[in-house]
Amino acid sequence: MSKAGKKSLRVVQFGIGPIGASTLRTVLSKGDAFQLVGAIDVDPAKLGRDAAVVAGLERPCGVQVRADAETVLRKTKPDLVFHTTSSFLDRMYDQLILCARAGCNVVSSTEELSYPYHRHPRISAELDEVARENGVTLLGTGVNPGYAMDALALMATGVCNTVKSIRVRRVVDAGKRRRPLQMKVGAGLTETEFGEKKATGTFGHIGLVESLYMVAETLGWKLDRIDERLNPVISTREVKTPYLTVEAGQVAGIHHAAEGFVGARQVVSLDLKMFVGAEDPVDAVTVVGDPPIDLAIRGGIFGDTATVAALVNAAPLVVDARPGLVTVADIPLPRAYAAID
Amino acid sequence: MSKAGKKSLRVVQFGIGPIGASTLRTVLSKGDAFQLVGAIDVDPAKLGRDAAVVAGLERPCGVQVRADAETVLRKTKPDLVFHTTSSFLDRMYDQLILCARAGCNVVSSTEELSYPYHRHPRISAELDEVARENGVTLLGTGVNPGYAMDALALMATGVCNTVKSIRVRRVVDAGKRRRPLQMKVGAGLTETEFGEKKATGTFGHIGLVESLYMVAETLGWKLDRIDERLNPVISTREVKTPYLTVEAGQVAGIHHAAEGFVGARQVVSLDLKMFVGAEDPVDAVTVVGDPPIDLAIRGGIFGDTATVAALVNAAPLVVDARPGLVTVADIPLPRAYAAID
Repeated sequence: MSKAGKKSLRVVQFGIGPIGASTLRTVLSKGDAFQLVGAIDVDPAKLGRDAAVVAGLERPCGVQVRADAETVLRKTKPDLVFHTTSSFLDRMYDQLILCARAGCNVVSSTEELSYPYHRHPRISAELDEVARENGVTLLGTGVNPGYAMDALALMATGVCNTVKSIRVRRVVDAGKRRRPLQMKVGAGLTETEFGEKKATGTFGHIGLVESLYMVAETLGWKLDRIDERLNPVISTREVKTPYLTVEAGQVAGIHHAAEGFVGARQVVSLDLKMFVGAEDPVDAVTVVGDPPIDLAIRGGIFGDTATVAALVNAAPLVVDARPGLVTVADIPLPRAYAAID
Repeated sequence: MSKAGKKSLRVVQFGIGPIGASTLRTVLSKGDAFQLVGAIDVDPAKLGRDAAVVAGLERPCGVQVRADAETVLRKTKPDLVFHTTSSFLDRMYDQLILCARAGCNVVSSTEELSYPYHRHPRISAELDEVARENGVTLLGTGVNPGYAMDALALMATGVCNTVKSIRVRRVVDAGKRRRPLQMKVGAGLTETEFGEKKATGTFGHIGLVESLYMVAETLGWKLDRIDERLNPVISTREVKTPYLTVEAGQVAGIHHAAEGFVGARQVVSLDLKMFVGAEDPVDAVTVVGDPPIDLAIRGGIFGDTATVAALVNAAPLVVDARPGLVTVADIPLPRAYAAID
């Protein structure tokens, strides 16, 4: 049984954008389970202000937002940093190095950190080395990547003697999600605009290939080839969300698929649709194996709150884990932390 | 990433009843992943014979069944013992002590070992102490307890910020399972016979209360009271299985329920039906929380093969785990091992 569960975890919030602000509010809502001891953000509009107020709460928490991460970490010496600054590892892995050198465990929302060994082998090796040297653990997680299309898929195979292939399907109604996500999936664009945005390379869902490799390699498949496709979902009707209207014929969102092959055989298939007006949201895992597994979360997992939950719930597991760079497949199974009421 | 995954695990099979025989066959089917180095059983009809043949295979494996566990373990020094001798801890925990003292990790099918802290606090403490002293890990698991009604329920909460209550429902068509299971659920008995058998105390499903405590306590609930009920499911029609016929009005199987309360509030409910003729087998987890989770494995998890898979798949995770008595909530999430084909 966890030791971390029995004491208050001293934490720093690193990055107070939408996910960071929500993480901070959740941390403050969990009573004695966490003690917020620092908050870091470089936005001049946030500096010097109370972190809770910056995160949208009325009641101040007595912790001011600072820009100098190193000073905050060295002064507060937290058990763990909630790191929510970027989706892309190469833009900010120095922030993770800094946390590790300051002796802090890290749970990060950085999608590329969830299984970074392929896209960033050099950075992965360096992060692992620095984490081990400093006796801390680094984890990238969230609802996706980190749960819906990788951890849940692995869990589904836990009672299988043989596995021939796995198919994971996630359908998200982007119309029920926060505004940045509706923008991120291209809702309301024309097909031409979608094509132009797609060409910039940072469009669509980040982390699908990371999930693909995590599932395949954890089960022992060495993938010979992966096939990744990003296409628009075109709306067949007018759909209104609190933030925008999609006309029939406009882009409603994305269909992002990734498949992994061993030789000519497809062994893992991840299929993600995020669009406004999706009528049957679901998270489904189908394992072709012995025994076969046909798992579904009806209605799907609501992403905005679930991402923050995945981060916060991972905290005590990461504090207790062996030092190094780890994935959700390396630590005890996800479960709610300090969540009962 | 696991170190155990990279080498062949040297294992001993301790107990060659139906589950042990199936475990042994699975181990031998997995190529280099395992090396069977010993086999233990006290049945005179099995002693001295080839373990693979005893387990129902045609081709011998070159390992003979021995009765003297201590000698087998000391001579072979396996990485891990698959232990499948009994459902009840007090009848055989000396076998686990013996494994630990011989320096062997253990994955056991003993239902009461899955979360033994309440029913057997003294034995739990002793097992944990001896395991730590000898640097080995002891785990009790299987499909149920160990997965369907506890690990899967915990996993479902992994993306929740708050959890108000959890309901787990498992419906098994016992008509599709092995003969001992059909007997165990009382198929074909009259209601009176069922009542008499129930009074002996060893009838029904073993491990439901263990699962209840695992779910509740891992999430932080201190249960004030548990309510456990075992009732017959009465068949409304004639049902034939390969082994027996249940007439309308006879017992088709069991309905076993366990509920955990904090004060007057029910926080965890486990509901298990195992009967011949069940038309909608399922494993379902409903989390009332934020976000809510409505998870189901359609068709259910086929228990006979899944129990063995749960044992075999846990092996590398247990070899890598910290020493001591652990539960499935303490080790990395279940996933198939050496299962791809």
